[in-house]
Amino acid sequence: MSSVVPTKFKGFAPKTQEAWEHPKLVEYDPKPFLPTDITIKIKACGVCGSDCHTLSGSWGPYQRPDLSVGHEIVGEVIEVGDKVTEHKLGDIVAVGAQSDSCLQCSRCESHNEQYCQKQLVPTYNGKSVQSNGYITQGGYASHVRLNQHFAVKVPHNLAYEYAAPLLCAGLTVYSPIIRNLGHDLTGKVVGIVGIGGLGAMGLQISRALGAKKVYAFSRSDKKKQDAIKLGADELIATKDGEWVGEHLDEFDLILNCASSGKDANIGPFLQVLKLDGKFVTVSSPPLTESLSIMPYLLLMNQSTIRGSGVGSIKEAKELLQLYADKGLKPWIEKVPISEEGVHQVVTRCHKSDVRYRFVLTDYDKFFS
Amino acid sequence: MSSVVPTKFKGFAPKTQEAWEHPKLVEYDPKPFLPTDITIKIKACGVCGSDCHTLSGSWGPYQRPDLSVGHEIVGEVIEVGDKVTEHKLGDIVAVGAQSDSCLQCSRCESHNEQYCQKQLVPTYNGKSVQSNGYITQGGYASHVRLNQHFAVKVPHNLAYEYAAPLLCAGLTVYSPIIRNLGHDLTGKVVGIVGIGGLGAMGLQISRALGAKKVYAFSRSDKKKQDAIKLGADELIATKDGEWVGEHLDEFDLILNCASSGKDANIGPFLQVLKLDGKFVTVSSPPLTESLSIMPYLLLMNQSTIRGSGVGSIKEAKELLQLYADKGLKPWIEKVPISEEGVHQVVTRCHKSDVRYRFVLTDYDKFFS
Repeated sequence: MSSVVPTKFKGFAPKTQEAWEHPKLVEYDPKPFLPTDITIKIKACGVCGSDCHTLSGSWGPYQRPDLSVGHEIVGEVIEVGDKVTEHKLGDIVAVGAQSDSCLQCSRCESHNEQYCQKQLVPTYNGKSVQSNGYITQGGYASHVRLNQHFAVKVPHNLAYEYAAPLLCAGLTVYSPIIRNLGHDLTGKVVGIVGIGGLGAMGLQISRALGAKKVYAFSRSDKKKQDAIKLGADELIATKDGEWVGEHLDEFDLILNCASSGKDANIGPFLQVLKLDGKFVTVSSPPLTESLSIMPYLLLMNQSTIRGSGVGSIKEAKELLQLYADKGLKPWIEKVPISEEGVHQVVTRCHKSDVRYRFVLTDYDKFFS
Repeated sequence: MSSVVPTKFKGFAPKTQEAWEHPKLVEYDPKPFLPTDITIKIKACGVCGSDCHTLSGSWGPYQRPDLSVGHEIVGEVIEVGDKVTEHKLGDIVAVGAQSDSCLQCSRCESHNEQYCQKQLVPTYNGKSVQSNGYITQGGYASHVRLNQHFAVKVPHNLAYEYAAPLLCAGLTVYSPIIRNLGHDLTGKVVGIVGIGGLGAMGLQISRALGAKKVYAFSRSDKKKQDAIKLGADELIATKDGEWVGEHLDEFDLILNCASSGKDANIGPFLQVLKLDGKFVTVSSPPLTESLSIMPYLLLMNQSTIRGSGVGSIKEAKELLQLYADKGLKPWIEKVPISEEGVHQVVTRCHKSDVRYRFVLTDYDKFFS
């Protein structure tokens, strides 16, 4: 077990933003080690649309050179600070999109650390006030170091590559489902818009929590068979138009997982909600894209549009346990990590050419 | 008491849509009388922004010639159908924006008739399926006829001219306040955006229901003194910019009463909501105006944007009683009804040149 903590970490980073589709192997200084930190030797990392948005610059410029992305990380704890109480050497843990927060405000203290308004630190490309302004580095890398609170133990019967994508894609859909409908979906009707990385898990989770009926919404019916295998009762192809009339007053929750808002017309989704139903949007397209809503449509059905950003650490623990207990597996494509592998996943992910989530694997082989 | 029901009703209607600012006195056939209908001899009618949107065509073309608008009506019951159980001749009743619905669906049966998806009939310019497709006529008129359910008894200690604007402007803000915060606002922080006809009543109602703190939001501080007299603790002038930082995580409810969405940037309002706080929009600007929302902003604070359309009949009754019990008075400008009076109120209302609601009065004098 090579548990030596190197003085430099290795990761994949584009040399320039223009060359974002070609990350190269680089070395960089780890974040300064704090007493509440752990260092993780990475074993697998999922590939999130956020990685592409960040690399391509559609969410703005990089905060540092040699930026390594990736925030669906699973690995082994190889270093623990003096004040670490939750993890020990050798533990297998998972990390999502957040690596620190103030941990003291009312939000942090009420399992809402993902909405901390004081010192929220994203797992990569985030400024760690807690560590002298270090700009964080993600999981397309040999190691990651972060506050212990933001690592979650992986149940022994859940494989690395399945745990990884649950920490961002899975949690991003799990949190709004249970926050808006509770943990028991008996009697509830759920719609999942956009059958991609997030939507696929939205179907699995809605089904696993016992929803009365789960609909997949997709532009065409190309993904119908997949959607049904993932847990949908039915797929509604929205480009076919006339589906609204027969679904009025039916939905408790519609979860918008579509990766682009550009051609989206959310009016029909608002129309089919129950009066207390909610349309919750969880995806974050480029900053240049907006949701456009006619106020009139909001009034007519007392519509609720809500946002949800990833989820809490408590919810991440629940979700890993749910997948472990039910023997569920996210649908993934495994790609061994390497310059070629990273190039492949970011370019294909950017084109939504994946069913339904890439996971970078074989870290031990590459980095040893 | 002239309680004879005329064979023709008289009202003010533009000759053409182009001449919408100059409604002229016209005569028209009443709606066919149904056994559940009552006929009301009108005594006062408030002037709503909807009247101008409808007259000017910004919500689309008229459904009929000689359209008479007005849906904040108070008057005397002078005719009751055989199946009328709730009103008797001589009762003083108030009517809002809705004159009929199916009264059978689950929404109608659960005090949500304003969201009926089967047969909702607006008080004017609405198609009454129940009456052979008659296009309804409003309250800038001698009489109005409608289903008894949509008329509400006016408490004896509430003057006609004060009751009238409660039925649309008042109800439109009352319903979302109590639906989102309950009837007791102790401990709650409320913001009212846009201090016009709706906003002014939003301040009064929030204060009357016991809110811990009531903020008025306005572009400038011109209306500061008025806002405070109406019930605000403080006015925040939004064009001054830097107000967000000191109000993070503070609001339980922000009610958007601004009559135009054109220059609106709702981002700052979403930022100052509590995690379960809601931004509720109740105004319906021209159909060409949209609210534009960056999805990113929705995610960051688990933001909720909600719509609310007027309110239920049950809520209208509660609201009239609240104003009567507390001795509250909407701030109004009274204008005697006449061609000149109607011209004045629609043109000034269209320019938001009113503090804070016009009420047309002296119907007995004009129509006798």
